[in-house]
Amino acid sequence: MAQNVAEKLIHSHLVSGTPEASHEIGLSIDHTLTQDATGTMVMLELEALGLDRVKTELSVQYVDHNLLQTDEKNPEDHHFLQSAAERYGLWFSKPGNGVSHPVHQARFGRPGKTMIGSDSHTCAAGAIGMLAIGVGGLEIAMAMAGDPLYVQMPEIWGVELTGKLPDWVSAKDVILEMLRRHGVKGGSGRIIEYHGEGLKHLSAMDRHVIANMGAELGATTSVFPADENVREFFNAVGRPDEFTELLADEGAQYDIEEHIDLSTLEPLIAKPSSPGNVVPVREVAGEEVFQVVVGSSANPGLRDFAVVAEILKGRQSHDQISLDINPTSREILMDLTQGGWTFDLISAGARIHQSGCMGCIGMGQAPAVGRNSLRTMPRNFPGRSGTDEDAVWLCSPETAAAAALTGKITDPRDLEMDYPTVQLPGKYSVNTDMLIAPLEESEAREVELVKGTNIKSLPEFDKLPDDIDVPVLLRVGDDISTDEIMPAGSRVLPFRSNIPKIAEFVYIQVDDTYPTRAGDFPGGHAIVGGDNYGQGSSREHAVIAPRHLGLRIVIAKSFARIHWQNLANFGVLPLEFAHPGDYDRISHDDVLRFSGLREALRNGNSVTAELDGEPLELRHRLSDRQVEMVLAGGRIPQRAAQNTADETAGTTASDRPREEIKPAQPEG
Amino acid sequence: MAQNVAEKLIHSHLVSGTPEASHEIGLSIDHTLTQDATGTMVMLELEALGLDRVKTELSVQYVDHNLLQTDEKNPEDHHFLQSAAERYGLWFSKPGNGVSHPVHQARFGRPGKTMIGSDSHTCAAGAIGMLAIGVGGLEIAMAMAGDPLYVQMPEIWGVELTGKLPDWVSAKDVILEMLRRHGVKGGSGRIIEYHGEGLKHLSAMDRHVIANMGAELGATTSVFPADENVREFFNAVGRPDEFTELLADEGAQYDIEEHIDLSTLEPLIAKPSSPGNVVPVREVAGEEVFQVVVGSSANPGLRDFAVVAEILKGRQSHDQISLDINPTSREILMDLTQGGWTFDLISAGARIHQSGCMGCIGMGQAPAVGRNSLRTMPRNFPGRSGTDEDAVWLCSPETAAAAALTGKITDPRDLEMDYPTVQLPGKYSVNTDMLIAPLEESEAREVELVKGTNIKSLPEFDKLPDDIDVPVLLRVGDDISTDEIMPAGSRVLPFRSNIPKIAEFVYIQVDDTYPTRAGDFPGGHAIVGGDNYGQGSSREHAVIAPRHLGLRIVIAKSFARIHWQNLANFGVLPLEFAHPGDYDRISHDDVLRFSGLREALRNGNSVTAELDGEPLELRHRLSDRQVEMVLAGGRIPQRAAQNTADETAGTTASDRPREEIKPAQPEG
Repeated sequence: MAQNVAEKLIHSHLVSGTPEASHEIGLSIDHTLTQDATGTMVMLELEALGLDRVKTELSVQYVDHNLLQTDEKNPEDHHFLQSAAERYGLWFSKPGNGVSHPVHQARFGRPGKTMIGSDSHTCAAGAIGMLAIGVGGLEIAMAMAGDPLYVQMPEIWGVELTGKLPDWVSAKDVILEMLRRHGVKGGSGRIIEYHGEGLKHLSAMDRHVIANMGAELGATTSVFPADENVREFFNAVGRPDEFTELLADEGAQYDIEEHIDLSTLEPLIAKPSSPGNVVPVREVAGEEVFQVVVGSSANPGLRDFAVVAEILKGRQSHDQISLDINPTSREILMDLTQGGWTFDLISAGARIHQSGCMGCIGMGQAPAVGRNSLRTMPRNFPGRSGTDEDAVWLCSPETAAAAALTGKITDPRDLEMDYPTVQLPGKYSVNTDMLIAPLEESEAREVELVKGTNIKSLPEFDKLPDDIDVPVLLRVGDDISTDEIMPAGSRVLPFRSNIPKIAEFVYIQVDDTYPTRAGDFPGGHAIVGGDNYGQGSSREHAVIAPRHLGLRIVIAKSFARIHWQNLANFGVLPLEFAHPGDYDRISHDDVLRFSGLREALRNGNSVTAELDGEPLELRHRLSDRQVEMVLAGGRIPQRAAQNTADETAGTTASDRPREEIKPAQPEG
Repeated sequence: MAQNVAEKLIHSHLVSGTPEASHEIGLSIDHTLTQDATGTMVMLELEALGLDRVKTELSVQYVDHNLLQTDEKNPEDHHFLQSAAERYGLWFSKPGNGVSHPVHQARFGRPGKTMIGSDSHTCAAGAIGMLAIGVGGLEIAMAMAGDPLYVQMPEIWGVELTGKLPDWVSAKDVILEMLRRHGVKGGSGRIIEYHGEGLKHLSAMDRHVIANMGAELGATTSVFPADENVREFFNAVGRPDEFTELLADEGAQYDIEEHIDLSTLEPLIAKPSSPGNVVPVREVAGEEVFQVVVGSSANPGLRDFAVVAEILKGRQSHDQISLDINPTSREILMDLTQGGWTFDLISAGARIHQSGCMGCIGMGQAPAVGRNSLRTMPRNFPGRSGTDEDAVWLCSPETAAAAALTGKITDPRDLEMDYPTVQLPGKYSVNTDMLIAPLEESEAREVELVKGTNIKSLPEFDKLPDDIDVPVLLRVGDDISTDEIMPAGSRVLPFRSNIPKIAEFVYIQVDDTYPTRAGDFPGGHAIVGGDNYGQGSSREHAVIAPRHLGLRIVIAKSFARIHWQNLANFGVLPLEFAHPGDYDRISHDDVLRFSGLREALRNGNSVTAELDGEPLELRHRLSDRQVEMVLAGGRIPQRAAQNTADETAGTTASDRPREEIKPAQPEG
């Protein structure tokens, strides 16, 4: 049968399950990607698992998030991660080498490979025909230990692109158009596969822009074929032999079909404070702007900076504008510099920052309260910039450059200049000296982990009780993001390896009494949410930290995929309302009574709680495998128990062959 | 009589007093320089004084310190400062334009002018024949309001330079040699004037390095003649017409004489944690290094970066090194980029940061605990880097580059390469678009100050009581720096315009119970210190914040000049032991009893306190003018009282002509 690209990737890596929509499947994993904000936790998990050496083809530890170093915590994490990479056989990308996604694509990406990453934008690698999925850190640790990735089989959503983008409209506007049409939940449970003749006008880095922000649609991932444009990319980055073609078969079908005529698109912008608030730029033109930030994994390519430089060349940013440039990698900064674009940007008044994520995750560049900041970044959730009452807009590099010149939101077509031609070099700079290769095994075993004072072992977590009464400490609305659950920013992120400390910041933007009140209920508590609970970043701290505070059960109308998996992985029971209207029956501080949870979870997908003496009907979507994990208190205590059993039998977890780890059958 | 350069500068600006050593003189002030960390306070002081427009020839507000923007506080300060510059008639240098001292020298500096700045490295402008003095922010506000600067007439210390620096030895090693010889108090009460035939081998930017770190010697300032090398600098920065020659007269004399034969110098380094701990690099060669930082006002010139680039060119920084580059200004970064040096630095693994002070004041780049960091910066006081138990070393760009390559402290002469020739352009890049000119007066009067939520009015301060009992809440040792009194770093600096909040951080590195204990004594308290109390940064927060906590009297063996002035300016009485051995008589929590302070201070320089029923003999060095100021509770309440008097008389403070403000006679 004719297969599309996503099916080819799945079938070639399937180790368990039936690849039919919503069935749990197991996929073997070729690459892993970890960044520093989530990676310290992954390395602590490897330590807790007693791993000797990663079993993947390739695992890379990047340092791109916590670069500011305002005290010893960040540099000590960098030293810790470097030592852990040495110990466990990972590549290490030093601070300053750049943002994980574009660096991975340029230096390690391979069409036809699978990758999971502890960063929700891991999906960007779909740009070159990889199946790349953002997951919680624990999934990564388990994949490094040789386990498959378990995931509900998504639907495949074919998006046919035809035509060619007009002048002043670029790849960012394509993904903003998808967000305008479908919002931040539109991709939930789906893989988006782009196809059609319009692809021939989109370079591999243009596709990176589109694949990257598939995360904002809530998609499992996005994929593009590995075609001639991808071959050209592999030639440009100096790895022509590592390209392999991967195309959809003639006549391949998709579960859902959609069409975008690129020639009809116009400059778009996402208003504060959601990537889904998309409108045409002209609709909001004239609003005053005080900051413009160019960079991040959402517009990481050389072109994305060069086009800004070409627009600003010989001109000057507006007096009231702070123009901040975050080069994505040092290779790109080398090319920007050799091409004369760095000079043009500085001349025009840009502040050039070190290579990395920077302002995208609130690491610097926070705006003033309520003052509009236009960014080429992927996200504008409230407070993510570092400023609680921020006003962040998302747009293309062209639209960003126009605002930098005028001090107002401006459709770049109204600049009264010709659309600049950006002549990219045929070969990009290649410089791998900040990528440190894994040590030989014998050397690696000699390495001691370098733990700073702020790096604490994981807390221990107990089993889920069979009978439990839990007060509802928070009842929140729809689309709660992990940025709201576990804020990022420079005040919080430095504690990423110190669960008791970081737990003091859980939900503080929503209700700053929550961490304290949780302490009043040592027996555990529940949280109630609306639709799409836990969207956004993949950070598992948004589960581990509230779990440490006593969170045992989350009830929502629906869950974002990664957060739902993270909840199960760390032993928090994720339940959905059988009747969404029941959401309104629950108030703050109501107590929910659960009895016989063990039997209920094992014998179907219904759970009934008692609320004010009345039954409350709930559902779960956990596989049998996940049910056992949740009952055990999470995957780590479960694996620890297995290890003990293995030791009695004379084997270790990492000795066991892959096929012994049986996935549970999916729910119907 | 033949005059040296310092005497010419003083005599041409003398408005009161006799220029004899230790007499108080009044000097008219041509330029003021404020940076953002101290400038917000100065602008609030202008507001408190009711100023309409600055009365100086030129006042410039720079933004170079608080650039990280991890929440709204820093960007809101930037907006506030921009609005205040517009309101009061200052130039405004936008964030990203660069470090105040090299920018001022390139764009505004004029031989023969006086300048005061609310930054202790203001003295750097001595490189081009200015008399430039770092003072507290209040002195700046008063100068802007038309007052002279009052200062004790310093001794003039002539340092004759002969010979020529050997390869691998540069200007930084000259000032490190001065620190090796004289330590951090060696320049106290002195102006250092460099002269001799060795000057012809030192460019204006080399002299900037030496003049800048005169602050570390505790000198009032440093001066160089405005000679042919300075003329060359004015040509290079595109202002040939603004150069005027200023040379010492034939046969000029100095109060103290010293000689350095440049040809005998070798690479030097200041060990942790004082700029005075200087040893030859070879003596400590081989120590492991984890970070190298190049930048700051201490090595700000194009050459200082270019030489690092030339040494690293085609090579790679060591795997364990983080190599951080802080360009000092965007003009310098433009030239670095056009010269190919930016490319060489990135290729070698450098993290290129935005233009500004950055790691020099703990704004990023904090090192790991106890891990050696080599920096081309001026200061390495404990904790200044942002890491409490840091290990920061100070050295030349050449020595820094050598460590970046080897991962160890390395004498650059041992690199086994030729000393690179740095070919500087004859003309530097000129780009003034980020320097916003003052508004016309009528426009300026329409400007409203833009105050963020974190910008609070100054607290009000009461008079010094005539009789007061003060417990000694802290007894500290020698060489306490203002970094220890009022820590910098990203955790504290954002509160620079919020005295009640920033006061919570006073002395926390020394004794974190101090702010709380101070609250227990609303009647006031005292602090006892050793020699050179209050060295380092000029920040007046190191006085205002403890004053807000109730500090009334500081008794020390001796004081650093700027801090001593700041104490008097804000109504804290600075006293010295008549018998330094009495320091040992005082313990924590001892109570000192003062009676009849008003009469004692007005009638001489002796004050006697009572300690355990015994007399404790103390001295003060305050002028009559300062005595009145301290008794009034500081210069602002004093001026407020004057204003009230003036209003009754139908005039305002700013109407009064300069000569009405009579300086008090100096003490004998």
